[in-house]
Amino acid sequence: MHEVFPGHVTSPAGFLAAGVHAGIKRSREDLAIIASDRQAAAAAVFTTNRVKAAPVLYTRRALRGNRLQAVVANSGNANACTGPTGYRDARTMAGDTARALGLKATRVAVASTGVIGVPLPMDQVRPGIAAAVHALSVEGGPGAARAIMTTDTFPKTLAARFSAHGTEYIVGGMAKGSGMIHPQMATTLGFITTDACLDGTDLAGCLRQAIDVSFNMITVDGDTSTNDMVLVMANGAAGGPRLLPGTPELEAFGQALEAVCTGLAKQVVMDGEGATKFMEVKVGGAASVKDARKAARAVAGSSLVKTAVFGADGNWGRILCALGYSGARFRPERVNLAICGLKVVSGGCPVNYSESHLKELLSSREILVSVHLGAGEAEAISWGCDLTYEYVRINGSYRS
Amino acid sequence: MHEVFPGHVTSPAGFLAAGVHAGIKRSREDLAIIASDRQAAAAAVFTTNRVKAAPVLYTRRALRGNRLQAVVANSGNANACTGPTGYRDARTMAGDTARALGLKATRVAVASTGVIGVPLPMDQVRPGIAAAVHALSVEGGPGAARAIMTTDTFPKTLAARFSAHGTEYIVGGMAKGSGMIHPQMATTLGFITTDACLDGTDLAGCLRQAIDVSFNMITVDGDTSTNDMVLVMANGAAGGPRLLPGTPELEAFGQALEAVCTGLAKQVVMDGEGATKFMEVKVGGAASVKDARKAARAVAGSSLVKTAVFGADGNWGRILCALGYSGARFRPERVNLAICGLKVVSGGCPVNYSESHLKELLSSREILVSVHLGAGEAEAISWGCDLTYEYVRINGSYRS
Repeated sequence: MHEVFPGHVTSPAGFLAAGVHAGIKRSREDLAIIASDRQAAAAAVFTTNRVKAAPVLYTRRALRGNRLQAVVANSGNANACTGPTGYRDARTMAGDTARALGLKATRVAVASTGVIGVPLPMDQVRPGIAAAVHALSVEGGPGAARAIMTTDTFPKTLAARFSAHGTEYIVGGMAKGSGMIHPQMATTLGFITTDACLDGTDLAGCLRQAIDVSFNMITVDGDTSTNDMVLVMANGAAGGPRLLPGTPELEAFGQALEAVCTGLAKQVVMDGEGATKFMEVKVGGAASVKDARKAARAVAGSSLVKTAVFGADGNWGRILCALGYSGARFRPERVNLAICGLKVVSGGCPVNYSESHLKELLSSREILVSVHLGAGEAEAISWGCDLTYEYVRINGSYRS
Repeated sequence: MHEVFPGHVTSPAGFLAAGVHAGIKRSREDLAIIASDRQAAAAAVFTTNRVKAAPVLYTRRALRGNRLQAVVANSGNANACTGPTGYRDARTMAGDTARALGLKATRVAVASTGVIGVPLPMDQVRPGIAAAVHALSVEGGPGAARAIMTTDTFPKTLAARFSAHGTEYIVGGMAKGSGMIHPQMATTLGFITTDACLDGTDLAGCLRQAIDVSFNMITVDGDTSTNDMVLVMANGAAGGPRLLPGTPELEAFGQALEAVCTGLAKQVVMDGEGATKFMEVKVGGAASVKDARKAARAVAGSSLVKTAVFGADGNWGRILCALGYSGARFRPERVNLAICGLKVVSGGCPVNYSESHLKELLSSREILVSVHLGAGEAEAISWGCDLTYEYVRINGSYRS
């Protein structure tokens, strides 16, 4: 059992954080550091994009030992497609952070987000790192969350607490959106902390499970970024014994982690670029979980479904169309569909319903699409948002 | 050798066509018939969407004999997700057309396009078929092309002529767009006629080849429709012997067919919903043709690339990002990229170029993206359009 609450990466014991304005962006916080007061087990999932940003390459290597003590992250510049200079810059970010904290450079992860193909302004970044280390505090969680924002309109943070062995543990997290969001392994940047004590391998296993039902089930625009990373550190500062595989305690941790990941992922979608509406797509009755996931993501990702949701147009044919090309196995004549609780399709054909009532339901800010494929027992949920004029405006002039 | 010219489905000998206003739509032509004066070899490719419209199911069955003599098609209603009634209606459309023309019903193909999930208004459709049969003429090509339009802003027609055995042959075609366009087997509706004489199997082989480099290489919005179909009829009315496999004559036919398919496919993209710009993505240096195709389509299909093109924003990082998640094999540090002839990336890193010059180039109506992956010799070309406010407007209120 766990309880979700509006906490931060500094909610778990032993974590400090800070967000500062280094000057990569004109006027907003753009550099964050999260640091633990002791070494932590660490695990991460990375973008599957073949073009990987320098910090992704660097951090993947740093994580070979499954131990970290700090993360440094910047927004405003992705440090991607920047060649050997980019890799050197990522290493310098880690080195500066490590030196200021008195750590080995391999204990520091690096992440970047922002525009691709422009060298990092290291003359801003390096003093920024010094300032951020200086500013580290237990109150620094919200500032760190703000400092990784790009086109986000609000910072994304969440925490959960659970008890095991009579000890209370906390999982805290932060993430950023809000374009280039598509479920294909760890979309977006996410950083999660916990004061529970876990082995690195167990932590990695829990993270993979949590990501599969959270960050991998959201979509904003179908583009998988070069910089995606979700990283978790477990420092054991809460005390208590190590959480062991196969125990209810590790299970409880896994559920708390899943709750934080799911909550953050939903915040990312709610803040999707230009989004005015949040869409939850539940698919049941699938032949396999894989099919259910494919079907749910195809509906949440369809440009035509997304524009119909934006326009509150009950054009459910587009939902069936998306199911049809999703790759999920089913027979069209067995599909049932409800929108915001109103049944519109039964056995693949429309039922009698009030079009004006459907329009009214589609005018709310949260749209629930429930599909039953009639092909089995498996289920999945995906989250998405509408496609709006504002998405086009933001991305037609991203760098201007 | 062939020559492309602005012809129609009635340009080849022995074909008549007509487009009439049956009343499915408020005020525009909405029903087309194409008929040959003799039986024709026929072949078609259909949507891979699991949810197939009734006319797709009907026509697939009718084509088992590889012989057709007429096609009846309507716009304004897709006759999809309409259950057994829908199939009965498709059969009635074929039956009515066949009777009026004095043919067997199995010699008539049926196609529909428009809104999903609404029964066909057969009280309008049946008199419409009678009127269209009555109106059939060699001048009917343009009207037939208009009658299959949905959100298209102009009718799409093209023809090509070639000579073989001292006989001149013509291939004529028409197609419609302009949403739910994504390369996954025969996107959109397309009807092609020729007065050459071919075996049905050879015709099917030529069509598959032509589709692979034309209709399967375009994308508007990533949605594969329930009604897609490209159908070709070869009636042999030009005289001359049968074009045989492995001969230069069949090769010449294949090239003319490809030219018509490619031209029509490009027209579909140019008229993409809300599109203001046409984008050609050439990928070379790929490890395989499959890789080249994947890479080209990912770039042409990326929402972020499409909005950047709309905004004339030279954000080439998004192009590399799309290549990276395309599934094509390559090493990022070997990629070269030019936009409208201006080299911007060499060896995976930006070169010196004038940002204002790039912006100027991106302000033209035709955008050429040239990628060299540095992984082999294979090439492919894909075509797409920009993503605009107008796309959102059209699809937010499609049925209103």
